[in-house]
Amino acid sequence: MTQAIDGLTSRAMDAAPSITRELANTAMGTQGLIPLWFGEPNEPTPKFICDAATRALADGETFYAEGLGRPFLRHALSDYMTNLYGRQIGSDRIAVTVSGGNALNLAFQSVLEEGDMVATITPAFPNLLAIPRLQGARLITHSMEIRDGRWHLDVDAFLEAAKPAKAVLLNSPSNPTGFMLEHDDMRHILHVLRQRGTWLISDEVYARIVFERTVASSFLDVSEPEDRLIVVNSFSKSWAMTGWRLGWLTLPPSLTPVIEKIAEFSVACAPPFAQRAAVTALAEGEPFIAETIAKYRLALDLVKETLASHPKVTFPVPNSAFYAFFRLNGVEDSVSLARDLIANAKVGLAPGEAFLMKEPGWFRLCFAQTPEQLGEALERLQPWLKQTHG
Amino acid sequence: MTQAIDGLTSRAMDAAPSITRELANTAMGTQGLIPLWFGEPNEPTPKFICDAATRALADGETFYAEGLGRPFLRHALSDYMTNLYGRQIGSDRIAVTVSGGNALNLAFQSVLEEGDMVATITPAFPNLLAIPRLQGARLITHSMEIRDGRWHLDVDAFLEAAKPAKAVLLNSPSNPTGFMLEHDDMRHILHVLRQRGTWLISDEVYARIVFERTVASSFLDVSEPEDRLIVVNSFSKSWAMTGWRLGWLTLPPSLTPVIEKIAEFSVACAPPFAQRAAVTALAEGEPFIAETIAKYRLALDLVKETLASHPKVTFPVPNSAFYAFFRLNGVEDSVSLARDLIANAKVGLAPGEAFLMKEPGWFRLCFAQTPEQLGEALERLQPWLKQTHG
Repeated sequence: MTQAIDGLTSRAMDAAPSITRELANTAMGTQGLIPLWFGEPNEPTPKFICDAATRALADGETFYAEGLGRPFLRHALSDYMTNLYGRQIGSDRIAVTVSGGNALNLAFQSVLEEGDMVATITPAFPNLLAIPRLQGARLITHSMEIRDGRWHLDVDAFLEAAKPAKAVLLNSPSNPTGFMLEHDDMRHILHVLRQRGTWLISDEVYARIVFERTVASSFLDVSEPEDRLIVVNSFSKSWAMTGWRLGWLTLPPSLTPVIEKIAEFSVACAPPFAQRAAVTALAEGEPFIAETIAKYRLALDLVKETLASHPKVTFPVPNSAFYAFFRLNGVEDSVSLARDLIANAKVGLAPGEAFLMKEPGWFRLCFAQTPEQLGEALERLQPWLKQTHG
Repeated sequence: MTQAIDGLTSRAMDAAPSITRELANTAMGTQGLIPLWFGEPNEPTPKFICDAATRALADGETFYAEGLGRPFLRHALSDYMTNLYGRQIGSDRIAVTVSGGNALNLAFQSVLEEGDMVATITPAFPNLLAIPRLQGARLITHSMEIRDGRWHLDVDAFLEAAKPAKAVLLNSPSNPTGFMLEHDDMRHILHVLRQRGTWLISDEVYARIVFERTVASSFLDVSEPEDRLIVVNSFSKSWAMTGWRLGWLTLPPSLTPVIEKIAEFSVACAPPFAQRAAVTALAEGEPFIAETIAKYRLALDLVKETLASHPKVTFPVPNSAFYAFFRLNGVEDSVSLARDLIANAKVGLAPGEAFLMKEPGWFRLCFAQTPEQLGEALERLQPWLKQTHG
């Protein structure tokens, strides 16, 4: 009998499966594996946030909610963003979404026609690239380089490459590199894109996972409300709420009604009880964020110390996000080595290929772990780190 | 300054806003309004279901989950479907989704190329039509007729009209009419589509809201696993879980890995604590469904009795779903009358135009209400029901 999938669209068939997900699937059931491949805090959502959802459930908050989010949450996000960025961001610019991924889907759906081009930077989180591609866009990718041991973006070369693009997609702080754009570059990028009429979709979900300040620089700092700028945020990383699937968009006010319309045909609304948890995270979550960042800083120090002791390991040290993206020089096939590490080191790393890294030998390690787990994982990796000497 | 939205895609701009949503927005703050326009049970989610989510939150089930759903829920859905339909439906055919709408999006995304045609039947729930259209599909719509006071589908005429379609979308039991396809017609439709290689997307979210049996006829009853059939279900209606945004797909086994891949780029996963609530709904929800159906039956009787006393009201009585879809003969503009009803009867009805009903004068009333609320609403409507005599 013919298989049903012979009738599928090429776009769905051609979508690249997640390399990391496939590795994780093969590792399922490996006893004692320390998985550092996914981008997820090691701790469950704090109790005070869960309790807010529990109370809302007991209060019967289980009905459909407004497509743009409950008014109390949109107002709280408006206050939060206004305080964080020191400029008024009205609740008419806020749309609550069902995850950062859903937010990206809605953003691209409102901006892209079939065949449009989207320009972005690599290495990159693969889902960011898969979303516009699934919507029929073609990608222009521009690679960052390493200069003086730091990630470096040649902004003008990127903008030149991005000329044919209908939209530019940026992710700062970046997964996997921890690279951050600063205001001067942001201003320049926005200026050029504004002149071209190009949309800018800025994924800022790691905005609060920063080690030397309170919040990363944002395109919201340097833009006007009616700029063609859509900023994507998520509750997942800052408040350890990955499983909740809650995010938000900051929009030009004129775009909000359009997003309201198309959100209705996506997931329609975010669960109202989860929105109570979200508003509690905003209201009471700052001490949690501060504690978490302190832990991540220690974890990053531990990784830095270990990797620095191996001269043939390249590790541009990040000051944002919770990933160590490093290279084992001499390794020719990261996917094979990642498999080797599962079997023999019992450590799960994501290979660089997953992030469109062309050079071989790169790996992403998520250090949002307890010091014990992370120390043990690094210890287990030692023989492989040493091998690359020879 | 140019507004940002001048740069938007025509598809997003042209998406029809929800007529009903716009009416409801204008009615916001109308004191004492009885809203019967949305398709939602009047009661919150039962406590035993909420409690399961609460326990899962306390247990720290707040991390990312599998893209196809937690294995325990996929197995429970496999058991539920197998028991309900009396034929083996393996868990390898089940994908948990973030709402029925998300399920429809994934289904169409896997099947449609830009410009493909989708054939469907009207009157219809507008979101069903908006989803493929937003993905670039063109629609072929075929109207049902009323024969001998019942909704009637000329199956062969529909199949003839559907010839150019890449996919057929059916919704049985139907929102808004309560029309149900039976096995003979289903077998015939599937046979013809199978010969053509056409996909069938069957939205069966009202499968359990039926008044003369346990479950509506399903295309799963008459199909083979590798038929090009995708069945959409949801937890919203049967278990009063509208706000939870949980649904599922039943797929040809060969399609499951493709859905897994593209679901990763949609919302990635359903919240794990909500999946505990879902599995509890399946395990312990049958008495709740039975009680609810008994209440809906009484509510339908009440509506029937009221509408039958007005000879110029056309009301093809449904035996599924929780809507009365009726016509006030002589009314030329349902949207205007719906506005009049908000202001003067303080009752919210959805106008037929929202469901692509070409004839004027049709309205949808959701009778999933307490007898008191429903009785009061019907009493308030009396003057308008009488007017149509003259």
